[in-house]
This record gives sequence, C-alpha cells and structure tokens, in this order.
Amino acid sequence: MTTEHEVKITKAGRRPGNQDTRGAILSAARSAFAARGFAGSSLRMIAADAGVDAALIHHYFDSKQQLFLATMQLPAELPQLVERVAAGGPAGLGERLVRTVLELWDSDAQPVLVGALRTALHEPEMARPVREFLTLEILGRLLRSAQIDPEEAVRRAGLLASQILGLVVGRYLLRLPALVERPASELVAEVGPTLQRYVDGRL
Amino acid sequence: MTTEHEVKITKAGRRPGNQDTRGAILSAARSAFAARGFAGSSLRMIAADAGVDAALIHHYFDSKQQLFLATMQLPAELPQLVERVAAGGPAGLGERLVRTVLELWDSDAQPVLVGALRTALHEPEMARPVREFLTLEILGRLLRSAQIDPEEAVRRAGLLASQILGLVVGRYLLRLPALVERPASELVAEVGPTLQRYVDGRL
Repeated sequence: MTTEHEVKITKAGRRPGNQDTRGAILSAARSAFAARGFAGSSLRMIAADAGVDAALIHHYFDSKQQLFLATMQLPAELPQLVERVAAGGPAGLGERLVRTVLELWDSDAQPVLVGALRTALHEPEMARPVREFLTLEILGRLLRSAQIDPEEAVRRAGLLASQILGLVVGRYLLRLPALVERPASELVAEVGPTLQRYVDGRL
Repeated sequence: MTTEHEVKITKAGRRPGNQDTRGAILSAARSAFAARGFAGSSLRMIAADAGVDAALIHHYFDSKQQLFLATMQLPAELPQLVERVAAGGPAGLGERLVRTVLELWDSDAQPVLVGALRTALHEPEMARPVREFLTLEILGRLLRSAQIDPEEAVRRAGLLASQILGLVVGRYLLRLPALVERPASELVAEVGPTLQRYVDGRL
C-alpha cells in the first residue's frame, strides 16, 4: 500500500494524574454520549456524573471533542487532520479528504479505527454519538469551510458520509479484494471526483 | 419514504420435504461457504458434507446461488432483481442500480438484509462468501452485461461496492439522519451519476 506522505498518529496524549479519576471521567462520558448523543452532552453534565469538578476534565482533556475521541479510543490528531483538509479551500477538497481518510486508515491507527467503527455499527447506543461526531464535527466542519449553505450542507454531508463509509467498510471491514489490493493513490484519483461533486458540484 | 414502483419480496420459497434434511443441507452449506468461500464451494461437496445425494439439494434449492441466499436468509428474488437492472443495458444502469438497492432495502426485506450485512461485518468467516457473492454474482454480472472488460470490471466493481455499501450502512445501520430522512427518489438522482461513472465513465 503506498501513501503519498505519512500521517503521524501518536497514542492519545495522557497527562499525569490519578488514573482512577481519568477512568471515572471516561466512563461517565461514555454513558452521557450514549444517552444524549455528542451534541446533547456537556462537560458540566459529565463532570457531575463523574463526581468531579468540571475544571478537572479540562486537566485531562482539552475539549469535548478530545474527550469523545478518548472515549472511543480514536486518535487525538483527528481534528488537526480535518483542519488540514479544510485549509486548502473548496478546490480539491474531495481529493484531499479521501487521501487523508486512506492515509489515516492505512496507518498504525487502523486497528483502533476498525474497533471504533465496529462499536458504532454493533452497539446501537453508540451509533448516535458517532454519527453526530462524523456529520457535525468532521463533515459539517469541512462543508462550512467550503462556505456551503447550512441546510444544503446536511444533504451534502450525508452523501459524503455514504461514499467515505462505504470505502472504509469495503476496504477495512469486509476487505473486498477489489478495494484492498488497490494503491491508495489510485483510489484517491477515482473517488476524489465523487466527493468533490458531493461538496460543491451539481447534484 | 417514496419509491417509484414497489418491489415484491416474498419469503424464500420452500418446497415440501423433510425439514431435517433441508436443515442439514443449510448447515453444511454454511460451513462450506465459511471455509471455502462462495466460488470455492460446490453443490457436490456440500451434499457429501450433509450426507445426502446431490440431486436432493436440487430438490430443495434451484442453484448454488439460491442455496447461498437461503443460507444467509436473503430474498430468493435477488438474482431476478439483478437481471432486471442488467436488462436495460449500460445507459442508465447507475440509476437503475441505486433505485433497486433502495427499493429492496426500503421493503419488508429490510430486517433480513440488515441481519445479513451485520453477519458479514461481524463474523469474519462469513465476510468472504458475502463479498464474493456481492462482487462476482451481483456487481460482476452487471458489469458483464455492460460489456466491461473483465480486468477493468474488478476495479469498477470495487468502486460500485464502495458507494453502495456506504449508502446502505449509512442509511440502514448507522442511520444517519442526512440519509434516513431523504426520499429515495432524490438519493437515486444524486448517487446514480456516481454509480454510472463507476460503471462506464472516465476514472
């Protein structure tokens, strides 16, 4: 598998402190996200559920995004990757997005990503926070960066999700040889125009 | 959810006979498909494993395709739907394919289809026969009908699978509101051109 440039994925940064407290926060966060989704959960609620001060959550996790990523054992670098894809503007966004998705999934992070996707698909209560995070925090962010009207952005985010989900489910879960045995660079060239049309093309 | 015309999905046709024999054949078929894939399993092997005469398999199931569909509890009408999509020729194949996929998944067959997809995603040994059936018997058949060169067809089948899988995973498993709340006719118009490009467009 060739990638054009390497994505460095490090283990989620852990700060010194009481691991029991960190664990209690993660456990409360998981329950909150499952019960109320990503958008409906606040750090204040999660702190109350964990029996800790809200300031303590900020000691361990920078943001609700970072707390969610840690809860799902997802790479802490995800928001930076999204910003990098957004930074180039609408032109070429489709190609940058599929290239980044494939670099990430072809990296050492693949097992944790497969695990998170399996969790979202098999544990009905985790499907909601994952789909909210995917559509609002990742795809919504990219479409805002491309200055797509918010209502139109919902429709386009759904289409983007459909192509990206299918690519990762086919290549990394179902392991279709016709997707597994392809160099990432060729898939980028073939799928990029689909994503670009879903971003700002005529539908 | 509006569909342009209804697909009638009936329960898999059962012929009279000893249900233990039928069960023994299905059980042997499941093991054979899991161990050797769809292409690598023969009705003769399955008959031997089940301890029955091969002619008896034909009494219960018309073909290896039908035996596989029964094993996965999938609708027996699937091959007819594929033929109907193929029958119109290459022009408009993308739209006919996504319309048929959505009609099927929006029909009463939805629970069995969700179950089969979950099995393929969660039981590693069933991923192989499902992906072989999907790429060879369904997408390969459609690409042959569009007279796509066999080697080129593998690549195009992978791309078709990526968009279709993502659409069904997003709409029926992860249940993304941006896909669930869309009329099928609009998704057909938006996703059809993607599939058409994957069938015979410039990649």
